[in-house]
Amino acid sequence: MTGGSNRVESFPDGSDLEASLPLPTPSLAPLEVHKVSVPHELTTLQYFKQRLCEVFFPDDPFHQFKNKPFLRKLVLALQYIFPIFEWGSDYSLSLLKSDAISGVTIASLAIPQGISYAKLANLPPVIGLYSSFVPPLIYSVLGSSKDLAVGPVSIASLVMGSMLREEVSPEKQPVLYLQLAFTATFFAGVFQASLGLLRLGFIVDFLSKPTLTGFMGGAAVIVSLQQLKGLLGIVHFTTKMGFIPVMQSVFEERTEWAWQTVLMGLSFLAFLLIARHISSRSPKLFWVSAAAPLTSVILSTTVSFIFKAQNHGIKTIGHLQKGVNPPSVNMLEFQGPYLSLAIKTGIVTGILALTEGIAVGRTFASLKNYQIDGNKEMVAIGAMNMAGSCASCYVTTGSFSRSAVNYNAGCKTAVSNIVLASAVLFTMLFLMPLFYYTPNVMLSAIIIAAVIGLIDVQGALWLWKVDKFDFLACMSAFFGVLLISVQMGLAIAVGISLFKILIQVTRPNTVILGNVPGTNSFRNLIQYREATRVPSFLIIGIESPIYFTNSMYLQERILRWVREEEEKITKFNENSLKCIILDMAAVTSIDTSGMEALAELKKILGKRSLELVLVNPVGEVAQKLSHSGTWDLFGTERIYMTVGEAIAASSYKSKI
Amino acid sequence: MTGGSNRVESFPDGSDLEASLPLPTPSLAPLEVHKVSVPHELTTLQYFKQRLCEVFFPDDPFHQFKNKPFLRKLVLALQYIFPIFEWGSDYSLSLLKSDAISGVTIASLAIPQGISYAKLANLPPVIGLYSSFVPPLIYSVLGSSKDLAVGPVSIASLVMGSMLREEVSPEKQPVLYLQLAFTATFFAGVFQASLGLLRLGFIVDFLSKPTLTGFMGGAAVIVSLQQLKGLLGIVHFTTKMGFIPVMQSVFEERTEWAWQTVLMGLSFLAFLLIARHISSRSPKLFWVSAAAPLTSVILSTTVSFIFKAQNHGIKTIGHLQKGVNPPSVNMLEFQGPYLSLAIKTGIVTGILALTEGIAVGRTFASLKNYQIDGNKEMVAIGAMNMAGSCASCYVTTGSFSRSAVNYNAGCKTAVSNIVLASAVLFTMLFLMPLFYYTPNVMLSAIIIAAVIGLIDVQGALWLWKVDKFDFLACMSAFFGVLLISVQMGLAIAVGISLFKILIQVTRPNTVILGNVPGTNSFRNLIQYREATRVPSFLIIGIESPIYFTNSMYLQERILRWVREEEEKITKFNENSLKCIILDMAAVTSIDTSGMEALAELKKILGKRSLELVLVNPVGEVAQKLSHSGTWDLFGTERIYMTVGEAIAASSYKSKI
Repeated sequence: MTGGSNRVESFPDGSDLEASLPLPTPSLAPLEVHKVSVPHELTTLQYFKQRLCEVFFPDDPFHQFKNKPFLRKLVLALQYIFPIFEWGSDYSLSLLKSDAISGVTIASLAIPQGISYAKLANLPPVIGLYSSFVPPLIYSVLGSSKDLAVGPVSIASLVMGSMLREEVSPEKQPVLYLQLAFTATFFAGVFQASLGLLRLGFIVDFLSKPTLTGFMGGAAVIVSLQQLKGLLGIVHFTTKMGFIPVMQSVFEERTEWAWQTVLMGLSFLAFLLIARHISSRSPKLFWVSAAAPLTSVILSTTVSFIFKAQNHGIKTIGHLQKGVNPPSVNMLEFQGPYLSLAIKTGIVTGILALTEGIAVGRTFASLKNYQIDGNKEMVAIGAMNMAGSCASCYVTTGSFSRSAVNYNAGCKTAVSNIVLASAVLFTMLFLMPLFYYTPNVMLSAIIIAAVIGLIDVQGALWLWKVDKFDFLACMSAFFGVLLISVQMGLAIAVGISLFKILIQVTRPNTVILGNVPGTNSFRNLIQYREATRVPSFLIIGIESPIYFTNSMYLQERILRWVREEEEKITKFNENSLKCIILDMAAVTSIDTSGMEALAELKKILGKRSLELVLVNPVGEVAQKLSHSGTWDLFGTERIYMTVGEAIAASSYKSKI
Repeated sequence: MTGGSNRVESFPDGSDLEASLPLPTPSLAPLEVHKVSVPHELTTLQYFKQRLCEVFFPDDPFHQFKNKPFLRKLVLALQYIFPIFEWGSDYSLSLLKSDAISGVTIASLAIPQGISYAKLANLPPVIGLYSSFVPPLIYSVLGSSKDLAVGPVSIASLVMGSMLREEVSPEKQPVLYLQLAFTATFFAGVFQASLGLLRLGFIVDFLSKPTLTGFMGGAAVIVSLQQLKGLLGIVHFTTKMGFIPVMQSVFEERTEWAWQTVLMGLSFLAFLLIARHISSRSPKLFWVSAAAPLTSVILSTTVSFIFKAQNHGIKTIGHLQKGVNPPSVNMLEFQGPYLSLAIKTGIVTGILALTEGIAVGRTFASLKNYQIDGNKEMVAIGAMNMAGSCASCYVTTGSFSRSAVNYNAGCKTAVSNIVLASAVLFTMLFLMPLFYYTPNVMLSAIIIAAVIGLIDVQGALWLWKVDKFDFLACMSAFFGVLLISVQMGLAIAVGISLFKILIQVTRPNTVILGNVPGTNSFRNLIQYREATRVPSFLIIGIESPIYFTNSMYLQERILRWVREEEEKITKFNENSLKCIILDMAAVTSIDTSGMEALAELKKILGKRSLELVLVNPVGEVAQKLSHSGTWDLFGTERIYMTVGEAIAASSYKSKI
């Protein structure tokens, strides 16, 4: 059934055809009718192997190993697992200079942000510093991105804090809370690394961009609202995260608002936002916003020290313990009543951290024109969190804001992460006492300034303009996070996104095609308004695979098209309908229900003396039709390669 | 941006083109390049209206009401809601004669089956008769099928029995069990009618045929195994449903096997199966298997009466209460700890009953060439179950076996259901004492003979041949039901079916196209082995909508195609690659992530001096590309209507 063109010997010279076809002579259907081929058959094993390869190894990661001697393969494998061996051998002093500058720059941002984000997760500030030390070191060995700046990030911190707080109070049970945070981090790492090793990275793709836009916007609002506690100096603040309880709490505790705190907070917030605004004007001015947080920490600490701020109701960080990360393996809890909470939190924060880390890595890789292997990155990020959980770190990933600064500061390799870690180490060993007078309100201002950039109003408006359904998913995530809970917002948005795919498969488009004048092409009449119908033919394009979910719908919808066409013909007294042509070019897959629907449709139309003709069944569909006997049911005289050939052949047949 | 063909004035005479293109002269690309149109814009409201109409009213049920006077509309509406008014006015004596014969025939089948199926659901046998009386009457007024024979069915009975028994024992708490059965029936009816009224009938389509094949096969095995209790005369039988506990129980209680029961059971089972076999040879002999159950009931009852069977260890049905259905409204329980069980059972049995009823209705409608409105049927079946639950009936629907007999016996309208109900009424009023001596083993034989036809080995083999994934879904359902539980089997199979759709959307096919010699068509090189590549061009067909779930994959996959093509070119020293053409004919939808991936791809390829050209974006995709600015990014000189035009124009451009 494969191959070859099949000249219809008895075909007339074409003059008859012209009369019945509105096609102009130069592009008239060729007199040859081409047999529709069926791809050569695969064995079940070959089929599954091919499908599995496409699902799990679409990027063919091992192609570089092909036809190489054994020793070379070994070196390549080592470089594959530890990318540091790949770029390490070419490392030079000039590269180190660039990396050192960018490393110090991101450290100045990472230290205040680390302390702030730890507070978002209801953890002691020093955990934020610990988490900016070990993970960057591990990532620099395993990671394949040259630009990623690793450390705690706002979204994952917020989600971890809100999920754990639902069951355990960080104030009343601080040790248990800390144990859970480390255990959740460990599970996040295990989950991330497994996704990478099992090459299931595509699970991350189920968080679509619109969903993330809405989710991050909602989370940013929630995070900012939480900072009202610090910004207004409120002592008795709600522990809830929702928009409504927080606003209630803010206004009920008006008496606790402290003007000194508010003044200081707003001034520094304004300073940070102005710095952000200046940097957004030109990438060259990136250092303005990069240096702003550390500058304001130093400034505010000095002010607070000189004016004895704590006497004026401004709370400060207080004593921070000196020294490097203490080990925390003994704090991992793999049993007890909170195990499922730790696993759940680990999976959710793990997937969010992955999404952010990989998106950031890809963004900067594409700016510098190199490729990131998603699955490899997952293993690197997972390993870094597993190791981190044993060294008093909580969930970390690549941060967007710090990676942008890293990129703009001219980083060349992951060495900038080593420099960052060294700077953090120096801070932990010698500079901890300096934070004693740093006001808490400063941390709130830093958090707000950092997350406010996540509220992407422009992006949401663009979604509204381009795709209403994406906008709906975005808004559901936003309001879900704001009004219900962070996790529910995420779940709703993912649900809506998947529902969209299913509804599209359940209720696919069918369109009526007509001939585009002057060509042999047949296109959607609504799209190409110059296209004309072919009398006696109804050409229907099916814009979807035919599955059990839509086979019944398609059958009914096609019969309705036929009914409407016949009503129109009666009304305008046109040539009676003879043949229904189904253009299957977009039917990329079919299942057994779909084939039965086609056979059923042929039978129903046959009873009304209408021909049903299939055009251009593609590879997999052709194969299945041929296997199932549907092909023989239609016969080669009812399956054509192009609509033009089908019309020409059918018109000719009806003449004899 | 719409309409019109756009003559490229400066186009050369074509002789140059021929040199660079392997297309033969007669079918050379026309010298006109056609602008790709964007469909005219819909407002948001129009768009949603159109989409909602397609989702909920694909069959346009109200088209018959258009342009009719008010009174006529009223009559049509009445006929729409109560189909009996449509066919009732033309009813004649000759139709009645046919309906009476078929009605009596199905009654002779329905009475023994009703009693047997009630036992499957762990209900008193008389409930099976009640359920064969009220529901057929209601269906005959509301239903639109002419062939459906309504009553209890095996699958729904089994599922109701197994779901309720998990929490309530029918032996220890018979009243509570009965209450739950009626309440579940009520909820099944509410659920079914709501699906119909809300026009959500497509939810039933999510149970694909392969899934159902596996599920029904598994359920048939489970049901048959349960009958071993009756067939072997075992007294202490397990209450579990699984394959393993039942087989254990059968062999552990070998001492209880009663040879008299076994002998009687096997003889009548053989009789029923032989009758079935005879009927399957020719539709004209349908009456053999239709009459067999009643014949064997009469025979076995006589034998049992004469030989005083109960003295030989053969258990009989015993006393059955005379009289019509007692009301059961007071037994519906809308509160208490078992409410959620009743709702869950109602929904699961309701959806299974709908699936069977609608499939049966459609099958026979298509044999007689009339249409069934799925949503209307759902309302009818739902109403019949709601009413039934108030009149001591449990879940009913259209039964496949009885409808087939009905059809073969020559039924013409739903009046055959009225005749069936009358015959059942007569039985309930006068013939109940006759069942006193009917042996229980007879009911087991009837059930086995009825469900054994549900095991569709041929169908499963066909699935294996045609579609491995469908076979996998089928087998999962089968073994899920057999080894885990009826509900889990169903859940697994639905999960697999949906997963298949998602994996297809997540990892879509991409194919390389080539020119089919002698035509202007470009087709999959693997399918059409005579097709040839066009030097310097890489033509990639994308066989899927581009969504967030696959945009990243497609981007990577296309880059891999490019890499592989470039490696091949280097190896064979061919013309260097200049242009990548994406054939978008099968890209029936795109979301914002998809458009970003296209833009990103263009950027990446642009950096390597490769052109990216889009061909034939269809309606919705063209609109979104144009809205989002992606269209302008590509520009009209990188978007063409056909692959041929794209190649011709690009080759020409590279010449100037």
